Amino acid sequence: MNFIEIIDVLGTIAFAISGALAAFSKKLDPFGIIIIAFVTAIGGGTLRDILIGVDPVSWMRNMNTIYIILACVIITFIFKTKLLKLRKTLFLFDAIGIGLYTVVGLEMGIVAGLNPFICIILGCMTACFGGVIRDILINEIPVIFRKNIYATACIAGGMIYFLLLEFNLSNNIVFIVSAITVIATRVLAVIFKLKLPSPYSDEIIKE
Amino acid sequence: MNFIEIIDVLGTIAFAISGALAAFSKKLDPFGIIIIAFVTAIGGGTLRDILIGVDPVSWMRNMNTIYIILACVIITFIFKTKLLKLRKTLFLFDAIGIGLYTVVGLEMGIVAGLNPFICIILGCMTACFGGVIRDILINEIPVIFRKNIYATACIAGGMIYFLLLEFNLSNNIVFIVSAITVIATRVLAVIFKLKLPSPYSDEIIKE
Amino acid sequence: MNFIEIIDVLGTIAFAISGALAAFSKKLDPFGIIIIAFVTAIGGGTLRDILIGVDPVSWMRNMNTIYIILACVIITFIFKTKLLKLRKTLFLFDAIGIGLYTVVGLEMGIVAGLNPFICIILGCMTACFGGVIRDILINEIPVIFRKNIYATACIAGGMIYFLLLEFNLSNNIVFIVSAITVIATRVLAVIFKLKLPSPYSDEIIKE
Repeated sequence: MNFIEIIDVLGTIAFAISGALAAFSKKLDPFGIIIIAFVTAIGGGTLRDILIGVDPVSWMRNMNTIYIILACVIITFIFKTKLLKLRKTLFLFDAIGIGLYTVVGLEMGIVAGLNPFICIILGCMTACFGGVIRDILINEIPVIFRKNIYATACIAGGMIYFLLLEFNLSNNIVFIVSAITVIATRVLAVIFKLKLPSPYSDEIIKE
Repeated sequence: MNFIEIIDVLGTIAFAISGALAAFSKKLDPFGIIIIAFVTAIGGGTLRDILIGVDPVSWMRNMNTIYIILACVIITFIFKTKLLKLRKTLFLFDAIGIGLYTVVGLEMGIVAGLNPFICIILGCMTACFGGVIRDILINEIPVIFRKNIYATACIAGGMIYFLLLEFNLSNNIVFIVSAITVIATRVLAVIFKLKLPSPYSDEIIKE
Repeated sequence: MNFIEIIDVLGTIAFAISGALAAFSKKLDPFGIIIIAFVTAIGGGTLRDILIGVDPVSWMRNMNTIYIILACVIITFIFKTKLLKLRKTLFLFDAIGIGLYTVVGLEMGIVAGLNPFICIILGCMTACFGGVIRDILINEIPVIFRKNIYATACIAGGMIYFLLLEFNLSNNIVFIVSAITVIATRVLAVIFKLKLPSPYSDEIIKE
């Protein structure tokens, strides 16, 4: 198991927990919870695999993904009562998820021989798509379309990734620093309520 | 035409009728009705083909699917006035559809050499996805997320399928019994209002 | 660059502008605007490529698509204040987009050796899917499900296409006439409020 596979597993865990938490908060039945956790965890990777043409998609060839997701649902259920501040916990696992999946998507784009710019888009899609489906299914406004910085954090991580590659650092360091860039950007954006500059500055925006 | 292809055609008919009925109930125009019938009937199979990498997807290589769906729309239109209890009829055709498509998805997963557990997920997705798109397009809560047992019925059928394979029965018997398991589970769940046990037993659940 | 590629680029421009306009009208932030423009422009082609099995999908192998979309967003932003009648402009660019993409989808279906009827469906999907995603993401009722003729215009263009092929005309003329058929049908349908005949003629329809 190489380092990028470890990152992929950790991302799966983060997204499975964020999906399970979201489903718990909506009081779905056990099967609904498993579906949401599953879709959140595999959504981004499935879109990535379909776009670059990996047949069959990754999770179909790897039972571990299934076991990990089921384990995460059970663990989330056990610690449910302690996860009082559900929205904050959910947000944190989501942030970790997009950081890790951005790197996985970038790396798979490079392996597929795609242009760096396309790789960044692919990393961003891999990171964001699972959460978008999760939010659509539980009937929330997709996190990507709320006011704070989200996909932009993935783009920033992607740019750091290609910048660091110029410095001949070891791949693993590039992976870690890029992922941390995404997570930190996202967390700081939420804490300090950072938004992108509005192109409607001369008008009053109703939120 | 082998037995699994016959099951596929019957599933297409069931879903095309369920889609046309749903579109009629929403008073869509003729073209909208055809679209919904088409999407409901081919949705699950298209997702299945994309995930396991069948290029191009099945319905593109087979004009019969198109003819069958158009015929179903016309037949549904003719008998529309007699289908007074639209919601019940719709429910029944949907139940038959998921039963038949579960078996088709399972079988195609086995042919693709996938793990039995993955095959069950694939069967479940093949069965449920058309109905989910139908419900999203006509702006209903997707049937899979309502309170009664739905995807669980497909999982049950999938487990029966692999259980029966152990007994060296003929394939056709395995197909039929598995499909009937799904349909019966779904129908009984609705009649007796069966739900999965709730993980929120200490709280009052508002529906 | 052959003629069908030129049509593809013009369609990308039309849809990128329609997406950017839609995003402006919803006051999304800069990144949201780019995402909507991007998704609207590449949505149809991506679905087409996934269904017929082009791996990786077209826009991943062609940086020009990305540059064109970004340029369209900037141009749309600059002329934003002059685009007062936003809804009408949006509608016009959308109409041009579906006309051009219908032809691209048809042609790629023919190249893939598909049945003419399937080619027409593929052309229609290529044309309509980007707009459907755009509308779902900005929370509008998908244009395809509103009362006026929309997908029907693409079907009409597709039938003209195969009709003209019978007359041994040059391909480019067939492309142009088919695209104009779609655009004119759509524009006239909106101006004269044309609808398909209702199958519910004996009842009062509430809109």
